[in-house]
Amino acid sequence: MNNAGEYLAHRLHHEIPLTRTMQLRVNRWENHELQLAAPLEPNINHAGSMFGGSLYSVAVLTGWGWLTLRLREAGIEGQIVIRGGSIEYPRPITGEAVGICAAPSEAEWEKFVRQYQRRGLARLQLDIHIHTPSGETAVHLRGDYVLQR
Amino acid sequence: MNNAGEYLAHRLHHEIPLTRTMQLRVNRWENHELQLAAPLEPNINHAGSMFGGSLYSVAVLTGWGWLTLRLREAGIEGQIVIRGGSIEYPRPITGEAVGICAAPSEAEWEKFVRQYQRRGLARLQLDIHIHTPSGETAVHLRGDYVLQR
Repeated sequence: MNNAGEYLAHRLHHEIPLTRTMQLRVNRWENHELQLAAPLEPNINHAGSMFGGSLYSVAVLTGWGWLTLRLREAGIEGQIVIRGGSIEYPRPITGEAVGICAAPSEAEWEKFVRQYQRRGLARLQLDIHIHTPSGETAVHLRGDYVLQR
Repeated sequence: MNNAGEYLAHRLHHEIPLTRTMQLRVNRWENHELQLAAPLEPNINHAGSMFGGSLYSVAVLTGWGWLTLRLREAGIEGQIVIRGGSIEYPRPITGEAVGICAAPSEAEWEKFVRQYQRRGLARLQLDIHIHTPSGETAVHLRGDYVLQR
């Protein structure tokens, strides 16, 4: 784990205490891709797979964490707000859930930063995926994030 | 709390253990309207308001609980699956969150039941709301629920 990963894990566990019960951890932060992971047991549901609310939380926090670390790296300060999102669960997760958030395109990122610097308010959509062990999509969240001063 | 409410609370706390940490409880089940509630403290976020993942969980479980109780009342057995949903957070929740799920129209319900009885598989959209103390919408989830044999 690098320093940025430790910084994010600390913030998650101290600012959102439910992430401790979920046993959420930072799995990887490399090349502007973030992975957060949570084990099945504390997040299990009635069907023996992961509870949809935990899957949503893993995904939404992977996007939030991505934006937190990317802004920190760019030296940009602001408040990140989750405005909404759409989630689909095509397949169940019956083991560890790993949320993956890759960077948006350079063009989208630059537009977002320019808009924030000009208006003090900007919106970014991030796609977060959780895969089955065989690599199929189990969860897809398109999250709507807002950065404001 | 009536028997149906106690039945639902028991199922939630035993089948989805995270709901115990969230201190989720059944607030009311009356006239085919279900209310689930969760206090702020165990669900707090970095901004001092309720974490978006907890709000989603309260909302999605209010819909799941509604369908569980409505099917139980109708004597229909099946497995409820959450297929996906869209959530919006127009305002923060800075105290207790109460998820409210009202019945869909009679026509939608009857169509859902008929389809399930014919095909063993049917889909129902439910709208769940969480309001601010002054009655404005803080959270709106449109959840996609599937019932299957």
